[in-house]
Amino acid sequence: MRASNVTMTLYWDETIRAALREDIPWEDVSANAVVPEDARGTADLIAKADGVVAGLPVFCRTFELLDKSVQFTLYTEEGARVKAGDKLLTLTGNMRAILSGERTALNFLQRMSGIATYTRAMADLLAGTQTKLLDTRKTTPLLRSFEKYAVTVGGGNNHRFNLSDGVLLKDNHIGAAGGVRQAIERARAYAPFVRKIEIEVETLEQLDEALDAGADIVMLDNMKGAALEEAVRRAKGRAKTEVSGNVTRENLAHYVSLGVDYISSGALTHSAPILDLSLKHLRAL
Amino acid sequence: MRASNVTMTLYWDETIRAALREDIPWEDVSANAVVPEDARGTADLIAKADGVVAGLPVFCRTFELLDKSVQFTLYTEEGARVKAGDKLLTLTGNMRAILSGERTALNFLQRMSGIATYTRAMADLLAGTQTKLLDTRKTTPLLRSFEKYAVTVGGGNNHRFNLSDGVLLKDNHIGAAGGVRQAIERARAYAPFVRKIEIEVETLEQLDEALDAGADIVMLDNMKGAALEEAVRRAKGRAKTEVSGNVTRENLAHYVSLGVDYISSGALTHSAPILDLSLKHLRAL
Amino acid sequence: MRASNVTMTLYWDETIRAALREDIPWEDVSANAVVPEDARGTADLIAKADGVVAGLPVFCRTFELLDKSVQFTLYTEEGARVKAGDKLLTLTGNMRAILSGERTALNFLQRMSGIATYTRAMADLLAGTQTKLLDTRKTTPLLRSFEKYAVTVGGGNNHRFNLSDGVLLKDNHIGAAGGVRQAIERARAYAPFVRKIEIEVETLEQLDEALDAGADIVMLDNMKGAALEEAVRRAKGRAKTEVSGNVTRENLAHYVSLGVDYISSGALTHSAPILDLSLKHLRAL
Amino acid sequence: MRASNVTMTLYWDETIRAALREDIPWEDVSANAVVPEDARGTADLIAKADGVVAGLPVFCRTFELLDKSVQFTLYTEEGARVKAGDKLLTLTGNMRAILSGERTALNFLQRMSGIATYTRAMADLLAGTQTKLLDTRKTTPLLRSFEKYAVTVGGGNNHRFNLSDGVLLKDNHIGAAGGVRQAIERARAYAPFVRKIEIEVETLEQLDEALDAGADIVMLDNMKGAALEEAVRRAKGRAKTEVSGNVTRENLAHYVSLGVDYISSGALTHSAPILDLSLKHLRAL
Amino acid sequence: MRASNVTMTLYWDETIRAALREDIPWEDVSANAVVPEDARGTADLIAKADGVVAGLPVFCRTFELLDKSVQFTLYTEEGARVKAGDKLLTLTGNMRAILSGERTALNFLQRMSGIATYTRAMADLLAGTQTKLLDTRKTTPLLRSFEKYAVTVGGGNNHRFNLSDGVLLKDNHIGAAGGVRQAIERARAYAPFVRKIEIEVETLEQLDEALDAGADIVMLDNMKGAALEEAVRRAKGRAKTEVSGNVTRENLAHYVSLGVDYISSGALTHSAPILDLSLKHLRAL
Amino acid sequence: MRASNVTMTLYWDETIRAALREDIPWEDVSANAVVPEDARGTADLIAKADGVVAGLPVFCRTFELLDKSVQFTLYTEEGARVKAGDKLLTLTGNMRAILSGERTALNFLQRMSGIATYTRAMADLLAGTQTKLLDTRKTTPLLRSFEKYAVTVGGGNNHRFNLSDGVLLKDNHIGAAGGVRQAIERARAYAPFVRKIEIEVETLEQLDEALDAGADIVMLDNMKGAALEEAVRRAKGRAKTEVSGNVTRENLAHYVSLGVDYISSGALTHSAPILDLSLKHLRAL
Repeated sequence: MRASNVTMTLYWDETIRAALREDIPWEDVSANAVVPEDARGTADLIAKADGVVAGLPVFCRTFELLDKSVQFTLYTEEGARVKAGDKLLTLTGNMRAILSGERTALNFLQRMSGIATYTRAMADLLAGTQTKLLDTRKTTPLLRSFEKYAVTVGGGNNHRFNLSDGVLLKDNHIGAAGGVRQAIERARAYAPFVRKIEIEVETLEQLDEALDAGADIVMLDNMKGAALEEAVRRAKGRAKTEVSGNVTRENLAHYVSLGVDYISSGALTHSAPILDLSLKHLRAL
Repeated sequence: MRASNVTMTLYWDETIRAALREDIPWEDVSANAVVPEDARGTADLIAKADGVVAGLPVFCRTFELLDKSVQFTLYTEEGARVKAGDKLLTLTGNMRAILSGERTALNFLQRMSGIATYTRAMADLLAGTQTKLLDTRKTTPLLRSFEKYAVTVGGGNNHRFNLSDGVLLKDNHIGAAGGVRQAIERARAYAPFVRKIEIEVETLEQLDEALDAGADIVMLDNMKGAALEEAVRRAKGRAKTEVSGNVTRENLAHYVSLGVDYISSGALTHSAPILDLSLKHLRAL
Repeated sequence: MRASNVTMTLYWDETIRAALREDIPWEDVSANAVVPEDARGTADLIAKADGVVAGLPVFCRTFELLDKSVQFTLYTEEGARVKAGDKLLTLTGNMRAILSGERTALNFLQRMSGIATYTRAMADLLAGTQTKLLDTRKTTPLLRSFEKYAVTVGGGNNHRFNLSDGVLLKDNHIGAAGGVRQAIERARAYAPFVRKIEIEVETLEQLDEALDAGADIVMLDNMKGAALEEAVRRAKGRAKTEVSGNVTRENLAHYVSLGVDYISSGALTHSAPILDLSLKHLRAL
Repeated sequence: MRASNVTMTLYWDETIRAALREDIPWEDVSANAVVPEDARGTADLIAKADGVVAGLPVFCRTFELLDKSVQFTLYTEEGARVKAGDKLLTLTGNMRAILSGERTALNFLQRMSGIATYTRAMADLLAGTQTKLLDTRKTTPLLRSFEKYAVTVGGGNNHRFNLSDGVLLKDNHIGAAGGVRQAIERARAYAPFVRKIEIEVETLEQLDEALDAGADIVMLDNMKGAALEEAVRRAKGRAKTEVSGNVTRENLAHYVSLGVDYISSGALTHSAPILDLSLKHLRAL
Repeated sequence: MRASNVTMTLYWDETIRAALREDIPWEDVSANAVVPEDARGTADLIAKADGVVAGLPVFCRTFELLDKSVQFTLYTEEGARVKAGDKLLTLTGNMRAILSGERTALNFLQRMSGIATYTRAMADLLAGTQTKLLDTRKTTPLLRSFEKYAVTVGGGNNHRFNLSDGVLLKDNHIGAAGGVRQAIERARAYAPFVRKIEIEVETLEQLDEALDAGADIVMLDNMKGAALEEAVRRAKGRAKTEVSGNVTRENLAHYVSLGVDYISSGALTHSAPILDLSLKHLRAL
Repeated sequence: MRASNVTMTLYWDETIRAALREDIPWEDVSANAVVPEDARGTADLIAKADGVVAGLPVFCRTFELLDKSVQFTLYTEEGARVKAGDKLLTLTGNMRAILSGERTALNFLQRMSGIATYTRAMADLLAGTQTKLLDTRKTTPLLRSFEKYAVTVGGGNNHRFNLSDGVLLKDNHIGAAGGVRQAIERARAYAPFVRKIEIEVETLEQLDEALDAGADIVMLDNMKGAALEEAVRRAKGRAKTEVSGNVTRENLAHYVSLGVDYISSGALTHSAPILDLSLKHLRAL
């Protein structure tokens, strides 16, 4: 997804504002105690580690919500690789607003950049192949769209966003339906007709049943070695294939060699450490 | 902080519900397609890695919000150390509610347990000393109270919760006020009288000025070696001392040996990987 | 979609409550003036016209939100055809709650039943054929999920729910992309991989380009006669076909004869008159 | 009511924004995939049927909420009669905002114009008489103020807006109070003193009792022929008279001839079909 | 108005909950630190001054929202006169919930009882006369319905609730309309037909114009002595009369002697001191 | 606290808007009926009594939320003493916005100015002494920050804002903990480390225990005469002292003579009458 103005206006603005309220329930005591109301200042955003920056529109918007007059000079762009020590941007505005918004703005930006950095590292391993990297629904509660956006900035692709906009039939669904074919048929009859039907299969028998029933995507769960190889072969041209789970440099190469279409990884959003960024050199104007 | 019923009712319920809405904007297509409305099931919560569990009340509440009849049998307790393979609890309820709530419940629990696990590892290094571990405001937007709670479950202590409920004067505040003493005096005159005044100092001169002006807590920023040792010595009995920054096993021991009162670490909340937990063995009743 | 408990709890409850607040901003003056607080009553829901009933869970929930003790005896079921004069259910509860909730409950039920009635009439014309009836996004602001649910109760199928969960490329998108093929390629590269790609084509040339580019669904817009017939023929087995617009008994039969897969109609939700239903025989207990 | 800036700012803005969020939960996938972020476009709003236009401020505001720079050239005005083919306005702005806002803006405008068109047709039948047309509370949940506004644009008048701001005593209230007189007295004693008291009567005896008790308005329910004629005669000069129910061209003329003051019709808001309007000729700038 | 269950459920619950959140943003540190989670206690509500109690349902609901198991034994009833030292009720429940809810519950109850006490004192001066006491819109922001309810508990009557549900034409409206008659005519043509029209007049000429134009209520503003007496005489039987402003024991008697219908007083809600009430004798169970 | 732009934007704007919605649920019938949409006017804010003005930013913001073009000329400043008859400001803007916003703006301003006036009168009695005046949590539900701000404008100081941001151990906490020392120790171990610990003591024995346990602040509850004098003497230099309760001119002088640090008074916020202010001389432009 993209950080379009529509997304920002309708949805992210509200989340950013809620985050600011979380950090400033009624006032910033420290800033109000010592900083004059009209003082203006300027500061630099500095990278303290190498990585991929994601979330600049969110970072800037945080300050804009506190001070309509704030100005930014950008020295980089969304998705760029940055080095420790790089100056990413300079902001100028009301001093209190800068001090009060700093932590919230960085909390968004560091987290989103952490995800983009981690994703980029994984995606680079897939560069030049037909296999694509996917995120999952293992995101931070209330921040899914920010995180899925950060995944795309880092070169990953989005799987479904939620339980309403995608169909994924797992073993429990199959059990409840009475079989792979029945599950697919019920889902196709029930789901809005624009939904692709994805199903998780654990054996080649299940796979065949899924392909015959017209599954659009097959998640090859817990398949290994020859079985996995055969599964990918059988699915080729009939359905997209996805593997999931603990992805490493080694098994990534293996999956690519088999021709798997998609590899999904929860770690992109649930375990990426932040990218260390800092607001520095705040000085009065 | 504690996960009391008051916190749950007034505040967390709403956040959990918002997280559920994020994952299920209008319906769970997969579950509704194949699982009968009245089907009931049971499943186990299993640890897939060693760690400290935090967030069980949030995990359980997520399902309760979807199904008032859901029941839990607990085999562990909040804050306990668990081993990979341990069964933490069994839940029984409406099958659709279990399937629909699973991801949201785990997203909370894994993240909170990840923080508790990381915090516990750090706190254990301080066991038996007078030095305490603190969190920071470097938390996930909108989830601060969940994360600060997880820190306490893991054996850490809470610093201020936000910019309204604590005073921390940094270099920019000092610059705006015209000096350490002036900053402290303005803050004491301005802030609600129940607030302790904390100030960040970078030199022994600043430290002396802060102590003379009656600072309650001094953050010894960027001080190292003999200067740091001398600073802790001078502050002893006059103000609490805090050091912050990239905490490692080595410098932790060093800070303890100096008698620093508090060590704060943003990594507790911004970079702890999740604790891998899984809902398994879902079976129809 | 289905009116599952999850949908009701997470989403519809809030909408119903907002509707009740719209009708009762602070109190029901008439009821409070003359009806004793503890008076209990019973009343019947009567059909005043023939039709298909949809929205019974919403109707009942409206009263439950005002009075936890309210009881219902149902004489029909969701989706049933009813005749003028039929008694659909009897409700028993607090008299003030019945009087205060009546209008809001009926406003939902009559509208949803109106949509189901209209949809059923159209869907019946397609019974026994391979052609399916679809709704559109031409729904009442804020009530889309209620209305799309009513369409399924009436035998229709759901198209995408919103601009985030489905891709439909129209002439403006094609123009902006520089052609049919480019639009499809950009959409496939950009959209979450579980989305089907639908595109609106106006000529056989556009159709061929869309099919070659791998469109999943083609909307045959403004095509008529031989061109439409040829278009359906060419798409067969390569993409699903959809026609839209002013659907009549006559052109419906024509579309079916051509083997069109889907017919979408905005009128299902934007112009269905309500089904006349009434709460009658309210009597004190 | 009027669509003043106060109503728009305090209330409608929020509803329009909620409607936009319903249609664009996180992004417009199709527009974001193929339309460049800064592309600008222009389009025309065209009538596809004859009718009365209502809701232009809402239509325009929808786009303004997505794009502050959008500009409108109006060729008609609120409440004007338009003909199929008429160009009502031209809008110019960000292309993505136009595409993303189109459906929501039209969903409001078509519905409101449908109500105004239907109301105008009815009101015209009363032109030149002393009898006025009223709406009811049979409105779409959450859209009452939009619909009651559309009724006034079409030449109708507003009855009460909700259960808090008007008193209408029906048979159940009368039963609970123990009689017509008692119901009116209790209501007068209880209701804010600026409320008029309206009561529904079914017989001439009830009417006399209501008039003697000082009712401000009498709703003549289910009265026909000579009884109705006599009722209107008796009420003349003592209370306003209202009739309700299925209004037709024939009975309208009859009511007018009797000198009834008000005729209320639920169909104005619950069963008016939309006015077909379309955004056409979108072209890049 | 009455504190019916409908008002409580739809509206007051939310306000009480917001007030609790204001006082307990995330936890009650003091209670959580020292009181065991499951401790239960009991306490008495004691009057510390004479007065009229109003708001008991709100007081009780505050605790119920924190603890579903809380129980109340009432020794008085809403609207009763209480003496300093009287025990009003005993509550029993979770100890933390009692401690955490105490302040919020009392803040509502003391304020509402203060209004009821003040209103009762004024209303008693009008006992046995035809003149009634009215409140105004000079209420505390966000608490209007609580305060208007308290006025009725104290024996006062409600004027309009807001600018939407009542018409009151003041000098500026008259100026804008071009005269008293024009203002009334425009208002009658514009306002929902169930609204009474009230107008503020300052001279006998204006009064005559208002009566001729059919005003329902005349507010006699700044009229004194013979002019006021004559004004009341002229309006008798043609319109209700209202006087407003600084009401004292003396002018109250004067207004009554003139036969004024209504006396409105902003002080009822904007300047009544609280009634001193206290939660005492909290003891563990 | 200060009325900074951050507080206004993040928090007060929303409260003001909610207050406006309370007074104008959908429209201002009177203004819309008679005032042309584009009419502009100007009016003066006049003091009708002597006092201290507080809340000017809130007053002005109320109109700005309704009319972005409104302009203000200020003749006084926040916190100034005003005399009856003084003109405080002139505002110029859309006539409907002025009429519609008047009551809400005044309801805030009068209440806040009433608190500032009352506080100033009390604070003046402490001028030149070491004793400071404190507010309490006995504030109006939902308006705490507005009222605590008004207290500071009037020369008072803020106690804790809520139960999360301050610790105050009362007799019930002491009872639950098993003693003064235990309560303090538990609170210190539990509360965020930036919190001061305040405890209420009733005897000199409790006081000694509190001082020994390291309480930061002692609330001397119900202590009188020699005991109070001795208590203040013992606490001097070891903890801050606070007395509370019914403060009068006489006991205020007594407390000051003893050297008490803080005197808290609930009456500042719960019983201050409003300052009478009025919008006058509205005239068309």
